[in-house]
Amino acid sequence: MKHVANHSYVLGMDVGGTNTLFGVVDTEGNILARDSVHTKEYADINNYVSEIASSIKRMMQDFGGVSCFNGMGIGAPNGNVFTGYLDYAPNLPWGKAVPLVKLFHEALDGLLVKIDNDANAATIGEMTYGAARDMKNFIMLTLGTGVGSGIVIDGNLVYGSHGKAGELGHVIVRPNGRPCGCGRNGCLETYVSATGVARTAKECLSRGVAVDSLLSKIDSDNITSKDVYDAALQGDPIAKDIFDRTGQVLGEAIASFVNFSDPEAIILFGGLTSAGELLMKPIKESLQKNILFVYEGGVKIIFSHLKGSDAAILGAASLGWLL
Amino acid sequence: MKHVANHSYVLGMDVGGTNTLFGVVDTEGNILARDSVHTKEYADINNYVSEIASSIKRMMQDFGGVSCFNGMGIGAPNGNVFTGYLDYAPNLPWGKAVPLVKLFHEALDGLLVKIDNDANAATIGEMTYGAARDMKNFIMLTLGTGVGSGIVIDGNLVYGSHGKAGELGHVIVRPNGRPCGCGRNGCLETYVSATGVARTAKECLSRGVAVDSLLSKIDSDNITSKDVYDAALQGDPIAKDIFDRTGQVLGEAIASFVNFSDPEAIILFGGLTSAGELLMKPIKESLQKNILFVYEGGVKIIFSHLKGSDAAILGAASLGWLL
Repeated sequence: MKHVANHSYVLGMDVGGTNTLFGVVDTEGNILARDSVHTKEYADINNYVSEIASSIKRMMQDFGGVSCFNGMGIGAPNGNVFTGYLDYAPNLPWGKAVPLVKLFHEALDGLLVKIDNDANAATIGEMTYGAARDMKNFIMLTLGTGVGSGIVIDGNLVYGSHGKAGELGHVIVRPNGRPCGCGRNGCLETYVSATGVARTAKECLSRGVAVDSLLSKIDSDNITSKDVYDAALQGDPIAKDIFDRTGQVLGEAIASFVNFSDPEAIILFGGLTSAGELLMKPIKESLQKNILFVYEGGVKIIFSHLKGSDAAILGAASLGWLL
Repeated sequence: MKHVANHSYVLGMDVGGTNTLFGVVDTEGNILARDSVHTKEYADINNYVSEIASSIKRMMQDFGGVSCFNGMGIGAPNGNVFTGYLDYAPNLPWGKAVPLVKLFHEALDGLLVKIDNDANAATIGEMTYGAARDMKNFIMLTLGTGVGSGIVIDGNLVYGSHGKAGELGHVIVRPNGRPCGCGRNGCLETYVSATGVARTAKECLSRGVAVDSLLSKIDSDNITSKDVYDAALQGDPIAKDIFDRTGQVLGEAIASFVNFSDPEAIILFGGLTSAGELLMKPIKESLQKNILFVYEGGVKIIFSHLKGSDAAILGAASLGWLL
C-alpha cells in the first residue's frame, strides 16, 4: 500500500486480552520506542486510556511532538473501523462497547486515531511493511487460537456491505465436522488453528493411534500445538502426521478461496506458522492437488514477513498512515 | 453502477454456441432493435464479423449513426477483458484465440468495443439494468449448464490478479463428490446446475427410489432439469425432493461465500432459476441453517430481474457504457 506521509511517525497499539503493546513506528517499519501495559489490570477503561496516553505523550515528545505524528492505529479484537468502537470482545474487561477512538483522540490532544480488528490490522500491516508491499490482490490468514482473515482486492481491504467481510476461519470445510465456537460444525478454524492442531492430537490420543508417540506422554486434556511441534521436530511420526493433516485441510480451503478473488498470494500469519516447513509442505501439496487448473502455478503461499511481537504493533501502526 | 452516458445508445452482442444475439439498447435498458445469426454457420470468423457488422451498421443508421453510440459490449464464453480476445472456447468454431474486439472495432468504423466473459457481462448487466442497480456489494451466480459467477465489491467487478476471479461454480462443496469436467470432484456446479439437477435425478432413478415417481417414465440417460421441474409442478414428491437437495447444497455454498465478501445480496440468474420457489425455498432454509451468526438477516437471495433472451443482450450491452 502506498501512503503519502505528511508526518514522519505513527503510533501503533495492539489491544490483547493479556497485554496491550504500543509504540512509535517510522515509514520503514522500524519500531523506535515501545511500551506495554497489562490489559486486565484496568477494569476501568478511563484508567487504561490515561495510563497509556501518559506513556505515549512522553514518546511523542521524544520524537518531535504531536505535529510529527500522522496518527495512531489501534488493532483490537472486534475493533470496528466504521464506528471507532471496540465492540464487545469476550476477553476484554470493559463491557459491551467502548468508544476507544474518541477516548484516545481526546487524551492525545486531538491526534487522529483509527481502529480496526486485529486480522485487518495485520493485513494492512503486511501491505505497508511486510510481504505484501507490492501486492494488490492477496489473502491473509491468521492462524492463532482461531483463524482470522483479511482480503485485499485491487489494493483495498474488503469490508463488505456491513464491515463483516473476511470470516474465512468460519468457512465450513467439513460438513458435520468438529463443533465450532460459532455454534456450527466443521469450520476451518476447528482444524487449522493452534487449538485445531491440539484437537487433532487429542483425537489421535483418544483413538489409541499414538501409543508409540512422544505425544502419549502428555496429558491429553492439556496438549498444545507447541507439544505437537516439539514432538514433530524430534521426528515423531504421529506428530508429523498431525501437521500433514492440518496442512491438507488448509490447502483444500485455500484452493477454494483462490476461486473467489484470484489472489497473487496467500499470506500465513500467526503462532501456528512457527511450524515452518512442517506446515508449509503439506499445504503446498494439498493446494497443488486441489487447485482449479486455471489458477495452477499462479498463487504463492508465503509466511508473513512481520515477526513475533513486532507484528502486532506494526499492523496497528499501519492504520495510522490511513488517516 | 453509475455511468456517464456521452451518447444515447450502446450495442450489445452475446456470443452463444448456437446463436449470436445483438441489439441496440438505451440507457434505461430498452432493447430498441435486435437481430441474430446462427453462430455455427460461420466457420470463418471474417464472414461472421462482416455479416453482423452489416446488420449493426443498418441499426446504427436508424438510431442517428455511430456518433450516437457510446460503444459495443460483447459477452462470450472465455471473452478476455484484458486482451480483447475471445480465448479458446470449446463450443465455438474459430480455434484458439480470436481478436474479436479489434475485428469489430475495425468493421464498425472505429466504434469502441469491449469484451468480457458471459458471467461477468451478466453481472455488470444486473448492476446497470437489473436487480443490483443500487448495490455496491453482491455476488451473481449463473445457474445454467454449468455455474458461473461474478463478484462485485465496492461497486467494482472483481477480476483478481490474472483476471480469473469468480470461479465459484468450481468451489469443492463435497470432497470426493461427483466428478466434474474440470478434472476434480465435488464442485458446486456438479450439483446446482441444470446438469447437476439431471444428475441427481439419474442417481434417484438408478438407486430405485423413484419407482413411483413420474420421473420413472423418462429414459434415465436423457432426463433433464426441465423434466424434473415439470414433475415437481405436478406434485411429484421425488422431483420436489431433488429441488430440495439442490437448494440445500446451494444454500450451504452461499453461506460460505458470504464469509468472503459480506454481500448485501446473492443474485441468481440462468435457466435453473425458472424453477422459482421450488428452488428458492430450500436455498433460503439451508442458508438460514448454515449462515454464520454475524451475517444472519443481512443477505438477500433474489432472482435476476433480467429475463430470458433479453438478459444476454442487456448484459453485453452494459459493457458498452464502460468505454
